[in-house]
Amino acid sequence: MRALRKVGREAGAELVEIPIPAPGDDEVLVQVHGASICGTDLHMLEWNEWADKRIERVPLTFGHEVAGSVRAVGDEVHHLRPGAFVAAETHIACGHCATCQTGRAHICENLRILGVDTDGAFAEYVVVPARNAWVVGEGIDPDVASIMEPFGNAVHATFGTGGGEDIATNSVAVIGCGPIGMFAVAVVRALGAFEVIAIEPNAYRREKAAEMGADVLLDPTEVDPVEAVLAQTSGGGVEVVLEMSGNPRAIEQGTQMLARGGRMSLLGLPDSTVTLDLTDQVIFKEARLQGITGREMFRTWQQTTTLLSTGRVDISPVITHRFGLDQWADAFEATASGGSGKVILVPGG
Amino acid sequence: MRALRKVGREAGAELVEIPIPAPGDDEVLVQVHGASICGTDLHMLEWNEWADKRIERVPLTFGHEVAGSVRAVGDEVHHLRPGAFVAAETHIACGHCATCQTGRAHICENLRILGVDTDGAFAEYVVVPARNAWVVGEGIDPDVASIMEPFGNAVHATFGTGGGEDIATNSVAVIGCGPIGMFAVAVVRALGAFEVIAIEPNAYRREKAAEMGADVLLDPTEVDPVEAVLAQTSGGGVEVVLEMSGNPRAIEQGTQMLARGGRMSLLGLPDSTVTLDLTDQVIFKEARLQGITGREMFRTWQQTTTLLSTGRVDISPVITHRFGLDQWADAFEATASGGSGKVILVPGG
Amino acid sequence: MRALRKVGREAGAELVEIPIPAPGDDEVLVQVHGASICGTDLHMLEWNEWADKRIERVPLTFGHEVAGSVRAVGDEVHHLRPGAFVAAETHIACGHCATCQTGRAHICENLRILGVDTDGAFAEYVVVPARNAWVVGEGIDPDVASIMEPFGNAVHATFGTGGGEDIATNSVAVIGCGPIGMFAVAVVRALGAFEVIAIEPNAYRREKAAEMGADVLLDPTEVDPVEAVLAQTSGGGVEVVLEMSGNPRAIEQGTQMLARGGRMSLLGLPDSTVTLDLTDQVIFKEARLQGITGREMFRTWQQTTTLLSTGRVDISPVITHRFGLDQWADAFEATASGGSGKVILVPGG
Amino acid sequence: MRALRKVGREAGAELVEIPIPAPGDDEVLVQVHGASICGTDLHMLEWNEWADKRIERVPLTFGHEVAGSVRAVGDEVHHLRPGAFVAAETHIACGHCATCQTGRAHICENLRILGVDTDGAFAEYVVVPARNAWVVGEGIDPDVASIMEPFGNAVHATFGTGGGEDIATNSVAVIGCGPIGMFAVAVVRALGAFEVIAIEPNAYRREKAAEMGADVLLDPTEVDPVEAVLAQTSGGGVEVVLEMSGNPRAIEQGTQMLARGGRMSLLGLPDSTVTLDLTDQVIFKEARLQGITGREMFRTWQQTTTLLSTGRVDISPVITHRFGLDQWADAFEATASGGSGKVILVPGG
Repeated sequence: MRALRKVGREAGAELVEIPIPAPGDDEVLVQVHGASICGTDLHMLEWNEWADKRIERVPLTFGHEVAGSVRAVGDEVHHLRPGAFVAAETHIACGHCATCQTGRAHICENLRILGVDTDGAFAEYVVVPARNAWVVGEGIDPDVASIMEPFGNAVHATFGTGGGEDIATNSVAVIGCGPIGMFAVAVVRALGAFEVIAIEPNAYRREKAAEMGADVLLDPTEVDPVEAVLAQTSGGGVEVVLEMSGNPRAIEQGTQMLARGGRMSLLGLPDSTVTLDLTDQVIFKEARLQGITGREMFRTWQQTTTLLSTGRVDISPVITHRFGLDQWADAFEATASGGSGKVILVPGG
Repeated sequence: MRALRKVGREAGAELVEIPIPAPGDDEVLVQVHGASICGTDLHMLEWNEWADKRIERVPLTFGHEVAGSVRAVGDEVHHLRPGAFVAAETHIACGHCATCQTGRAHICENLRILGVDTDGAFAEYVVVPARNAWVVGEGIDPDVASIMEPFGNAVHATFGTGGGEDIATNSVAVIGCGPIGMFAVAVVRALGAFEVIAIEPNAYRREKAAEMGADVLLDPTEVDPVEAVLAQTSGGGVEVVLEMSGNPRAIEQGTQMLARGGRMSLLGLPDSTVTLDLTDQVIFKEARLQGITGREMFRTWQQTTTLLSTGRVDISPVITHRFGLDQWADAFEATASGGSGKVILVPGG
Repeated sequence: MRALRKVGREAGAELVEIPIPAPGDDEVLVQVHGASICGTDLHMLEWNEWADKRIERVPLTFGHEVAGSVRAVGDEVHHLRPGAFVAAETHIACGHCATCQTGRAHICENLRILGVDTDGAFAEYVVVPARNAWVVGEGIDPDVASIMEPFGNAVHATFGTGGGEDIATNSVAVIGCGPIGMFAVAVVRALGAFEVIAIEPNAYRREKAAEMGADVLLDPTEVDPVEAVLAQTSGGGVEVVLEMSGNPRAIEQGTQMLARGGRMSLLGLPDSTVTLDLTDQVIFKEARLQGITGREMFRTWQQTTTLLSTGRVDISPVITHRFGLDQWADAFEATASGGSGKVILVPGG
Repeated sequence: MRALRKVGREAGAELVEIPIPAPGDDEVLVQVHGASICGTDLHMLEWNEWADKRIERVPLTFGHEVAGSVRAVGDEVHHLRPGAFVAAETHIACGHCATCQTGRAHICENLRILGVDTDGAFAEYVVVPARNAWVVGEGIDPDVASIMEPFGNAVHATFGTGGGEDIATNSVAVIGCGPIGMFAVAVVRALGAFEVIAIEPNAYRREKAAEMGADVLLDPTEVDPVEAVLAQTSGGGVEVVLEMSGNPRAIEQGTQMLARGGRMSLLGLPDSTVTLDLTDQVIFKEARLQGITGREMFRTWQQTTTLLSTGRVDISPVITHRFGLDQWADAFEATASGGSGKVILVPGG
């Protein structure tokens, strides 16, 4: 089969021919319908500092946001049959550590990631643990299924580490409207927020946020986003901030626009430390900051499936590009351009 | 009556004779049994930058941690009678803002503080809103009642903004063992923690923490507290950190010693910004940071009363000094010495 | 002024002329725009067994679901001015019992009810405690404001005693589609449920439920509602049941149609005991049953205001009749007819 | 090996010689240290109506509360080695249903039970799924490990379906002080309750409850337990009721002694329907009733391990009898006598 692989510990990738992998006893072989490109994949292509530190072995097929059809199952797999159409949860949990055993497998102490620690999905076939293969509900388009994993990030961030009970009827700000921010705008809307304020410097992305349902659009290069949010909320601030930018300055601003007793969920990954005024913006306000990573296994997947299969959220406008495997270079270029939503590699054309 | 007052916008205070105040319609007049000294009072005595910015009017009687006997009630007060022994909640809430009306009066948008915004308790008598007078349960010593307010801070921090369900059976670190940290050690113990690790550079305070029930004592000037906590918890970290020091470096360490999915409650007030590695210590770990201020009105007071009146927590060892009003200078010196727990001013001797 | 009053401990009421009442120090005088009729008012008119036991004094003006304009305020009222348009919270709490002091004033131990324990709102003017006067947000129609109190019942039931985090993306059944059930259908929809199943024998009410957004309508006199709900949910049952009927048989069925781990909120008041199979329908399933009464003060009012003022929920179709005070007999007849939603008495015409 | 088996669908059991079973790929073979007798086992011995309906196949080795040493592991088991000392979680979950995938495996839709649906633990060896083998922490006595499963029931009931945040500082009633009630008294104490009120007609069991830490003992055949609890709590009732009796009358009383806003966790299994006054005891009080079954996998096991290994709870006094396998008839007699706590069968003597 064809597979897009990192072959050396340096920038670049190669589309090569390798054997179709065989699933282990508790794994399934999936014929890839589509695999979308994540910021992580860009880092791996460019082989930045993070990639050099994080990736243990090459050659490695990368790519992890994937959906496709089960073609073979291991001997111990009884609940999935060839033909099932599945999307992959990419957090591979050990199942035995303290975190796994208290129902938080997505932050497993021994976490491995598909396409980072194991061969991934930019290929015609991929092997995933049976436990990580989520049967896609009826009425979900296969292309949309290919981006359920990053959409799940947005769903998890919106519900937060609690139950998301602070979304309905409240004002919510989404900072950073790359694809996951675009998704988040739509989820916040679907959960009954009073208003969604989208904050994003890139005009293309702001327009997409509007298309997904943002009520107020703010360009932080034009207005002070803290002042603008406070003005929009009669001085009270927003009950929830969903931080998708990873920008240290934006995170600091997020704390400043947060209402007393509010919640900020942090999903964007700053690549440096962040400096905060905890006394005035967190402690006296009794604000709550919470890290968000991956998707709760599998509460988030059920929520994701429901939101999509009922049409409450339509994320198809976020899919802006679609390429064959051999056009991978164009696909990565589109992803990095700032003028795209999600970009999908479709091995079968 | 005698009252200890700030008479100018500068360091110092004066013990002066002023008229006994009269309660308004919804207020009560309390004859002070004892009033303990808080760090805030030290700042007001020294008239530091914070005090100069925060205090709006002088002359002002200061002091806010207080218990005493009701001597008169306003016309609209029906549920309290002269003779009742009460402690004062020092957060005076408006009752009408969005925060008050959703049950979070302690972070009222129009919050005023007894002894900071209104005449306080370093005096023979003090007037407090009837709503802020908490009837002290049977079996609580009057001296102990005088420190129920700061003890309530520790109770609120331990329960956190949730229900404190993560204390029982888990490992908990208390960073900073001034009086509120000493209290917190005892509360954590009473709520069924697996172990309490107290982190404090001052030897006198570490000993007090041990007396209050700490299982492990760490001197951060002798050992790396992060390494020591991880070693103590088999590498997993603590489920809960109660941050009482306000030290930026300690707050950063608090995030590093936190288990995946753990909670850090921040009560100590840093006087500068704090720099954090959010990516590795918060986001990937799905850690939760939460500000803590004051006491939930009045859930915390009920918890406080129960813990004290049942003897589950004995905070009397934290009361280390007791002075008359005319010895106020000695009292403040003892408070600032680093060799004290709580210091109480007792107007009646 | 004119007021509709119970003058004897027997069926009937009289429209009489009495003086306009004067507000006490912490009360406000409200000129009634509209007052809607509740099932409780029917019981008081008919003077059934409940009324005879519950009502302590006559003569008494009844009616409690009300909105109108503040015309005078007591001496201690500082946050409301004449001219403000308010709706009344009808649960008058003491503020001092253990329940009030832990933020649950709506289930106060010394609870009194407007129009039941005090003179009510079927009149040109009504006096309410200032604390119970909720300023109606902009963009809410005065007639709609008159039914915010019963709408708040539905909002409180839907959010439940927790945060309502189990509504979004799940299947929900509403049993009993009188006005509060009709409201609940709309709220469940607005909070992002997967589907709303309305169960109601009265055809008029089923149609109203459909108008409010029910996806599935069940007539329990035609189909077995338990079988029908299980079929609709692939055998799994619904995650949430909102019980508005008070019918003992329907409550039993509610437990049977509930998913494992599900929640049933009980708002309808059975007038007899209810017999349940706790072993199979509650214990083995770890189902949760919770009583719902009144509205959380004032979290529910904020949610109610938001849902209405943003247009997320439009409850105007539930207002089906509107009468002057002198047509009170017709109004009560319409209310009892089974062919109505909410019926409003409008003193000013 | 020797095994105590049901050999016919009728009362009785036989101690027979059968081959040592072999573990499947994802199973482990455990050499039984001790297996304690549960009420379920009594029903199976007597072959009552429940047993006849529930048990699908005989011959069957029964018994499910067990601890012992791993002697062999299946090919797919990598985290357990022969020699590990484990206790068994007896709920065997499918892992793939909606309930399992949202972290509630203990109420799996396809639940099977060790010793009920599969060969159990009254034998020298037992096979359990590797996932169900919990490594017993250091410092837990092997006999105590044998009763961790029923102790876990009490832990789960005490924490409830929420986080158990309503135990600390509140009054709690435990109704029914068989072994699980005895355990619950100790857990409630360890979590910081204000007081524990134990309600039990059997004098032997009341004494055991006192030994485990009950503050107040009530004999419901001597006093009205509702009146007594209300008197003990100044009329307010208890915040939490843990119902362990399964007695319909006691369950009804449980609702009556519950405080406004309180929680009743139901673990005891009534063998008939239960009649409740929902209007006054649940709805107006906003009480919450919740079913409890099994143990959360594996949050409850971590809590259980912590409570035992730290000595916060000492359940060894509940183990009152210990027999060899050949004395099984005496063991069952002791269990049924009403004068015992837990009775353990110890195959190795």
